[in-house]
Amino acid sequence: MQSISDLSALFENTLKEQDIKGFPEQLYAPIKYTLGLGGKRIRPILVLIGCNLYNNDISCAIPQAIAIEFFHNFTLIHDDIMDNAPVRRGQPTVYKKWNGNTAILSGDTLFAMAYQYAQKAEPDILGDVLSVFSQTAVEVCEGQQLDLDFEERNDVTVDEYLEMIRLKTGVLLAASLKIGAIIGKGPKEDIENLYKLGEAIGLGFQLEDDYLDTFGDENVFGKKTGGDIITNKKTFLYLRSLEKADPETKKKLIKIYSEPHTDEQAKIETVKQIFQQLGVDTDSKKLIDKYFIEGINYLNKVNISKEKKDILVTLAKSMVKRNK
Amino acid sequence: MQSISDLSALFENTLKEQDIKGFPEQLYAPIKYTLGLGGKRIRPILVLIGCNLYNNDISCAIPQAIAIEFFHNFTLIHDDIMDNAPVRRGQPTVYKKWNGNTAILSGDTLFAMAYQYAQKAEPDILGDVLSVFSQTAVEVCEGQQLDLDFEERNDVTVDEYLEMIRLKTGVLLAASLKIGAIIGKGPKEDIENLYKLGEAIGLGFQLEDDYLDTFGDENVFGKKTGGDIITNKKTFLYLRSLEKADPETKKKLIKIYSEPHTDEQAKIETVKQIFQQLGVDTDSKKLIDKYFIEGINYLNKVNISKEKKDILVTLAKSMVKRNK
Repeated sequence: MQSISDLSALFENTLKEQDIKGFPEQLYAPIKYTLGLGGKRIRPILVLIGCNLYNNDISCAIPQAIAIEFFHNFTLIHDDIMDNAPVRRGQPTVYKKWNGNTAILSGDTLFAMAYQYAQKAEPDILGDVLSVFSQTAVEVCEGQQLDLDFEERNDVTVDEYLEMIRLKTGVLLAASLKIGAIIGKGPKEDIENLYKLGEAIGLGFQLEDDYLDTFGDENVFGKKTGGDIITNKKTFLYLRSLEKADPETKKKLIKIYSEPHTDEQAKIETVKQIFQQLGVDTDSKKLIDKYFIEGINYLNKVNISKEKKDILVTLAKSMVKRNK
Repeated sequence: MQSISDLSALFENTLKEQDIKGFPEQLYAPIKYTLGLGGKRIRPILVLIGCNLYNNDISCAIPQAIAIEFFHNFTLIHDDIMDNAPVRRGQPTVYKKWNGNTAILSGDTLFAMAYQYAQKAEPDILGDVLSVFSQTAVEVCEGQQLDLDFEERNDVTVDEYLEMIRLKTGVLLAASLKIGAIIGKGPKEDIENLYKLGEAIGLGFQLEDDYLDTFGDENVFGKKTGGDIITNKKTFLYLRSLEKADPETKKKLIKIYSEPHTDEQAKIETVKQIFQQLGVDTDSKKLIDKYFIEGINYLNKVNISKEKKDILVTLAKSMVKRNK
């Protein structure tokens, strides 16, 4: 079994070797740009690990690792239009650097290119791989739609939020592990448990992201904190606060989130204080732990060596316990 | 071999039977709406014909017929955003009826759903079907990008235009026939000739569309003529005129296309007159005939009965010779 850092280096090199070009150039330049912005490449690494659990030769899973990373980047390009996000990974987003039409179309192309890689599986498993891939694609869109819907709603519950992040983030991480394991020809029961592991870790991963956006150490988190508060994002911290707060605090929090603020730092501090007074920071950490343990329970059902399980535990920890 | 009208009715019924719903509703309502707007369903009919040439039982090609129609409708939803088109088939477009974000995301979902149908092929041909499907999807995006690029350019040649419509329209019609024939287990050589037939007819079909938009009988064409002229679309008629015109006429035509006009009808009449004086209406008809004959030449190489060829000739005629 290869180490995570070896798999990561292998994938990064493979991605660089892909010749992303074509005509018209205006269509392919944004794709090359987006893929070149970097990122942790967690999803393709999960594909490779999933395969490596059952097969020492992971070369057969490389096309699907690329497919998953392409798909993920396609969703980022389109999400950035929908979210009016000007910056990603410290660089202008495609729709800002080029324009909305280019972002729509280069995203569409990248989606189709993702399938060109996904379909490079052996005939005996091609149907299974694509079934997971397409089902996941639909679910990720459903998650994004819920996210957009929530912006307009004032009655979003914590449970609805968790279902949204399951669809938007959890299922793709789960599908990555699952597709890898299908290609590695793992047993059916293992494959389902790996999916459940990925889904639980995906939920923890997104909750950790939300937590760090508000309470993280900027040096560790890698970006400015408070972004979710400034953009009035209805995260777990916010929604759980509405559930726990007394009527007055609730009213205050809703007011802060609905009015324009000139002093962003003051707004961040006020909201953080409310979150801490209500203890939703602790609630968030507890929920992340719950998902982590849930994931590990699924992992323990998987019929693989302890050494292999340990690699997955290390990866899971790096995703859901990033500030520890 | 079933008749075109039988295949058309069969497809329309099958499409109606598909249960397009899901959660969140905001994502699926625009998809149901778009598919319900109608249209000639030429592409799925081509899939069914392609299969029926080699197999009396066309049920195995129905998922791919749906896939192609879904894909086509996905491109319409996204193109309408990019082209700022408020109306399609007499009804508001998705981005007008809902909004841009909904149009992006429901389009993405429909694209993924198209694959869910496309991948329902037997394992022995699944790779071939998907290879054509994805390659075509990329090419259609390339065609749309060229179309967008041309709007900004003043030096587009007729050849570039023809390559654009080949990608934007030709390849999908070609792929429809090809995928059908793959599913019907036609011989390899036939499949390639059917693709070439579809591509040639696709080019003729788009040129005919351009022609009718300017010179068509509104009662036959089914919509108001002159739309391309009002929106300054660089069609074959316009680009061929720039090639043929003397410097003064050329200057006049460019000027008309670059200035705002209050009297749209006067603009249409002036441009039509220039087109006719230069004889580009005749050039267009000749080129359409050229593509039609080219297509028929490919058809004649296909190893099928005369009865079957006749059905394809009838369909081709209905596409490229609509005002006759």
